[in-house]
Amino acid sequence: MEPLKVVQVGLGPVGIAIARLVAGRPGLRLVGGVDPAPGLAGRGLAEILGIEVKGAPVTSALEQALEHLRPDIVLHATGSFLDDVAGQLRAPLARGISVVSTCEELAYPFYRHPALARELDDLALSRGAVLLGTGVNPGFVMDKLALTLLGACRSARRVRVLRVVDASTRREPLQRKIGAGLSTTEFEEKRRTGRFGHIGLAESAHMLADAMGVPPALSAEVMRDPSPEVHPAPLLPGAGESAPARLPAAPGERVLTETFEPHVAEDLVVTPFVRVEAGRVVGIEQSAVITSSGAERVRLELRMYVGAKNPIDAVSIEGEPPIEATIAGGVHGDEGTAAVVVNAAGLVRSLYPGLRTMLDVPLRISGF
Amino acid sequence: MEPLKVVQVGLGPVGIAIARLVAGRPGLRLVGGVDPAPGLAGRGLAEILGIEVKGAPVTSALEQALEHLRPDIVLHATGSFLDDVAGQLRAPLARGISVVSTCEELAYPFYRHPALARELDDLALSRGAVLLGTGVNPGFVMDKLALTLLGACRSARRVRVLRVVDASTRREPLQRKIGAGLSTTEFEEKRRTGRFGHIGLAESAHMLADAMGVPPALSAEVMRDPSPEVHPAPLLPGAGESAPARLPAAPGERVLTETFEPHVAEDLVVTPFVRVEAGRVVGIEQSAVITSSGAERVRLELRMYVGAKNPIDAVSIEGEPPIEATIAGGVHGDEGTAAVVVNAAGLVRSLYPGLRTMLDVPLRISGF
Repeated sequence: MEPLKVVQVGLGPVGIAIARLVAGRPGLRLVGGVDPAPGLAGRGLAEILGIEVKGAPVTSALEQALEHLRPDIVLHATGSFLDDVAGQLRAPLARGISVVSTCEELAYPFYRHPALARELDDLALSRGAVLLGTGVNPGFVMDKLALTLLGACRSARRVRVLRVVDASTRREPLQRKIGAGLSTTEFEEKRRTGRFGHIGLAESAHMLADAMGVPPALSAEVMRDPSPEVHPAPLLPGAGESAPARLPAAPGERVLTETFEPHVAEDLVVTPFVRVEAGRVVGIEQSAVITSSGAERVRLELRMYVGAKNPIDAVSIEGEPPIEATIAGGVHGDEGTAAVVVNAAGLVRSLYPGLRTMLDVPLRISGF
Repeated sequence: MEPLKVVQVGLGPVGIAIARLVAGRPGLRLVGGVDPAPGLAGRGLAEILGIEVKGAPVTSALEQALEHLRPDIVLHATGSFLDDVAGQLRAPLARGISVVSTCEELAYPFYRHPALARELDDLALSRGAVLLGTGVNPGFVMDKLALTLLGACRSARRVRVLRVVDASTRREPLQRKIGAGLSTTEFEEKRRTGRFGHIGLAESAHMLADAMGVPPALSAEVMRDPSPEVHPAPLLPGAGESAPARLPAAPGERVLTETFEPHVAEDLVVTPFVRVEAGRVVGIEQSAVITSSGAERVRLELRMYVGAKNPIDAVSIEGEPPIEATIAGGVHGDEGTAAVVVNAAGLVRSLYPGLRTMLDVPLRISGF
């Protein structure tokens, strides 16, 4: 089988990690990159990645790259918010080019962006292309891994996932993204923007709840076009400690509650990128909880801060049989994200066209 | 979507657990059972299962059940050896009825039964049906779980899976199957038959090795018809401590080595089904190891005996990133097998027709 021709869109730290990995997989062939950042266009990927890659030009113009390089697949790592990146997804899809993206909101967009999800699904399906949002979180630790473990369960009353990340080991943008070094007042201001902190918890929670059959039971049709009446849960993190639950909830109605708090340094914390005095913010504590008929069915908790002790990924299933799974130290976010994206890319040919999710991907190492 | 109509073939302990679970899933509808055991035919499944099921007759005749009940899918739990059960698989496949089976050798039959695998693949594909072998082991702990974890890895030098099962908690046939209560001489005689002990380690090992790209790198075509020249590894457990490696192996050639030993009681062990004096066999210790160019790439170790301490499932990946995952207590084999089979059944409609494996199944809880 011919290798899949890949164009990498977005050459930040994650995009570069993805591109490097693509270059090493026999089943994939890196043919170019796209990034509008000054100083990148006109250079070759070999120079930017620091590895040997033949004839893979970098341009600032997405349409031009697609036209000239004619990739089979675009790997996309530019932003967390679907509204922001939708145009970058439409361009390849309209040409029948599949896309695997790290955009967190794309991991399961049916609740937060139902109209956009429908539009992108229609576009991809009509051109025979696959669109998939994935990464290590969302995409793996808090959804795919838990889903796979649920595959050995006859029933499941509740699924909980705890991820504790020591952000000291992560890239600089990630440390900034979680507010390391801010005062609590600055953190609060940023939180109010709704564009701060980890994105994707709600997406993972809904993905798990749908697989578990938590009402509303989504038929494929409803999933493609959920109306506000069918999915009334508050979907956006509120500015306060937690989004207010709409009360009273109808029996069986799914209610999503999110919380988002700063974690404050007790002592001085120093990383290669930030210096945090005691009393200032080292990172975030977020949760997303889904209840139905008063019963908690899904609980996701993320603690991500510089200096976090005992990093771990833990999946706990109250079911038949019960399952308690842990990954010592947790899966490294940046390394893991590049891996999940590239492994999923190697499986794209086996997926049905349209907007797909990790519910559909038989994730494994691939591309050899 | 209409529920999938299910006929359960094989009504031993695992078959009964599967049928009960099917009866509780809205996406599946149990329409009948098949088992030649005396006293079953002519009764209803409701009576045999001890639950409410409408109009689901049990017959001893497979062809007759398929003709009259016209299921969409057969769930099959009768035997471990593909040669023995192939006829039971051909009957539904020839009618375009998909099959999910607990037959261990079916989980990845391309190495041990290449000709039969090819024939069943051709038959299923030509009739638009899916054929899948799965369960908790093979099917989950030593392959699907490890494969999913590998999905977060950029590279993997070696994967090891350790499963320790306290067989005291398992069904009687399983305790007998692992030789609990035998003398070491009786154990040795049984081992020589080649039809004793846990079946499926080699299948899981090859599945992992193929995903990891361990040579021989299988193209789809080669996988459908591997010749002895291409896959020269010894495939059957030897009668001795370990199968002799064919020497010298060509560079990069995959070598499979299996070991199979009794575990002997140090003290008296008593379960509801067997009483084992000190010095007699309580169960098995088996391993399957795949090496390539002298490097160990896959190591699967199964310790299954009555009274085993510290049961656990542990997956250890030496890769980038490294992953150390454990399931405390391990996944219960009988409960887990029914769950994996029924969850996979709920996903059959999404699979491409033909002989599929857990490499292809996006395993999760399903059927709601």
